[in-house]
Amino acid sequence: MERRKFIRGAALGGAAATAASTFPKPAISQNRMEWRMVSSWPKGLPGLGTGAERLAARIGELTDGRLTVKYYAAGELVPALEVLTSVGEGAAEMGHDASYYHIAKNPAWAFFTAVPFGMTASEMNAWIYFGGGQELWDELGEQFNVKCMPAGNTGDQMGGWFREPIQAVGDLQGLKMRIPGIGGRMMEKVGVTVVTLPGGEIFQNLQSGAIDATEWVGPYNDLSLGFYQVAKNYYWPGLHEPGPVLECVINKDKWESLPNDLQLAITTASAEENVRMLAEYNARSAPALRSLVEEHQVQLRQMPRDVIEALGNASGELMEEYQSSGDAILEKVAGAFLSFRTEISPWTRISEWGYLSARQLNYNFPKS
Amino acid sequence: MERRKFIRGAALGGAAATAASTFPKPAISQNRMEWRMVSSWPKGLPGLGTGAERLAARIGELTDGRLTVKYYAAGELVPALEVLTSVGEGAAEMGHDASYYHIAKNPAWAFFTAVPFGMTASEMNAWIYFGGGQELWDELGEQFNVKCMPAGNTGDQMGGWFREPIQAVGDLQGLKMRIPGIGGRMMEKVGVTVVTLPGGEIFQNLQSGAIDATEWVGPYNDLSLGFYQVAKNYYWPGLHEPGPVLECVINKDKWESLPNDLQLAITTASAEENVRMLAEYNARSAPALRSLVEEHQVQLRQMPRDVIEALGNASGELMEEYQSSGDAILEKVAGAFLSFRTEISPWTRISEWGYLSARQLNYNFPKS
Repeated sequence: MERRKFIRGAALGGAAATAASTFPKPAISQNRMEWRMVSSWPKGLPGLGTGAERLAARIGELTDGRLTVKYYAAGELVPALEVLTSVGEGAAEMGHDASYYHIAKNPAWAFFTAVPFGMTASEMNAWIYFGGGQELWDELGEQFNVKCMPAGNTGDQMGGWFREPIQAVGDLQGLKMRIPGIGGRMMEKVGVTVVTLPGGEIFQNLQSGAIDATEWVGPYNDLSLGFYQVAKNYYWPGLHEPGPVLECVINKDKWESLPNDLQLAITTASAEENVRMLAEYNARSAPALRSLVEEHQVQLRQMPRDVIEALGNASGELMEEYQSSGDAILEKVAGAFLSFRTEISPWTRISEWGYLSARQLNYNFPKS
Repeated sequence: MERRKFIRGAALGGAAATAASTFPKPAISQNRMEWRMVSSWPKGLPGLGTGAERLAARIGELTDGRLTVKYYAAGELVPALEVLTSVGEGAAEMGHDASYYHIAKNPAWAFFTAVPFGMTASEMNAWIYFGGGQELWDELGEQFNVKCMPAGNTGDQMGGWFREPIQAVGDLQGLKMRIPGIGGRMMEKVGVTVVTLPGGEIFQNLQSGAIDATEWVGPYNDLSLGFYQVAKNYYWPGLHEPGPVLECVINKDKWESLPNDLQLAITTASAEENVRMLAEYNARSAPALRSLVEEHQVQLRQMPRDVIEALGNASGELMEEYQSSGDAILEKVAGAFLSFRTEISPWTRISEWGYLSARQLNYNFPKS
């Protein structure tokens, strides 16, 4: 999923973006501060948006009002997808966003959200919190005057909705699919014609046949957009975004001006939202998936092996390109990410994957 | 893993348990409180112990000293494995522990840590935070005058160290294995002679052949105990503890006496430690696993399919017993857990498991 056009549409439909000079100033009185959190999410967007709002509220409650955070949905204070720049320039003190919205500035940003065939949510946390990822994120953030930290995850996103089944990699040739970002670049390498569309226009384009396929998020968010009404083939697994991290982004000067306990309120509440958002996505995707299959006759289909291999090779080519891009920070981030991925994959295989593989064998286990 | 005897040994070797009447009283002055966190972990135990210490420190920093938490390792204030009772009775305000140490009081406690063939760390979070698990935990905790919440996870624990390879389920007949708790009950059902041993005595018993096998935690903790020197067969996956949750446990009266912001400091810091401990285990288990295989010639072996099926059936029998135990809260908790497990399994299969399965296929993906 990338929410650019969807969000831009929402932003234009809502309050117009306000010029920086007219932003309300933060209130400071009696050691009580009010900060502004801008975001890339349309107002009330379940999961991403409601999680960001929850984080903002938590910081205020946790500090008993010494640091209150007022949440602004996309377009209410700054346009969606301009969160990083706005926060770096101080137009807002903080934001909730996805790092990979900023790959046009540097593809290195993608590695702190998700890259195709990259790491799962658990692996991303291991890398960022204990594998040197945070230090690299800080180094990249410094160039934009921001401090970033994990503050949410959707878990593996679904492979997408297809009007017709995909039998082999050849079926992708010339297929028109809405899939943005680095995932889109991967699809182009196997012959897909990549289309960029606002989220609000996907349904009609899929219905009319203007596009043949689209990805969005997963069962929880996808069910509500109704794609099942016009495309019955729902493909798994998602290979383009295995465990996308959402971020809390803070203006670096403002961050450094905070006393230690208020810095920790942001850090701790962000980590809480990191685990809580993923828990919510998983808890709500389970019944949404059942509804899609049982009530809406959706065909769940596994990606054919040759498609997986072709996409894996395409993604590998992209990783090679980043590692030999000549851009120092990009090469450094890509190298560290891939090195950690190589180290952790055998462990994930014998633990998380191994356990889930065993659980799926048939044996006599009671349902409630 | 169960730490009872290991910990009891450590406790006896350290400061003697102090009678409740001589406990130091908590300091309260100028709205600054000092609470005591007792734990079941030997001093400095990596992962579990260091994570609990980190949580205690975080609460103090986060509240700028309004609520300082002094951490006590096992035996320093109360004996290990008496954390729940001690906290419930008010001998300490809070603790860090594993719910399943208290299955002798009621097997329902196990479902809030781990049961064989149960849920992964991510699934446990989904159940507890968004699937009704927390409400049931509160109901059970009320009987013991405690409030519990997730504050750590080790991830899937390894299947164990075996002196000889296991070729088929028949090889388990009469095998002497150190494996405690409900995992031990599962092993007994397939013919294993279950042995209880203090952690500090496992190595010598495995070396002498007094036991044929043992489980402990995973590569990060297991490497340091040196089992690889006397048993070369390290089995995966672990089926007895798929995603064990560690808990922060608080005296219920003390909990209710806290103002909202201090309650939230505990809640939020516990959630942070929940995600952080798992990240640390995963980050450190990856190189530990490589060291075991490359430097210590450990044979990583997958459990044979018939062993997995036999253990799955044995575990299923245990679940049936709990669901028809006649104990109202046990039947309710087991039922809710199994129902959530049934609902979420298909989603986990097509997302986390599906993605990891795809990533393991061979294709041209660069290492750093």
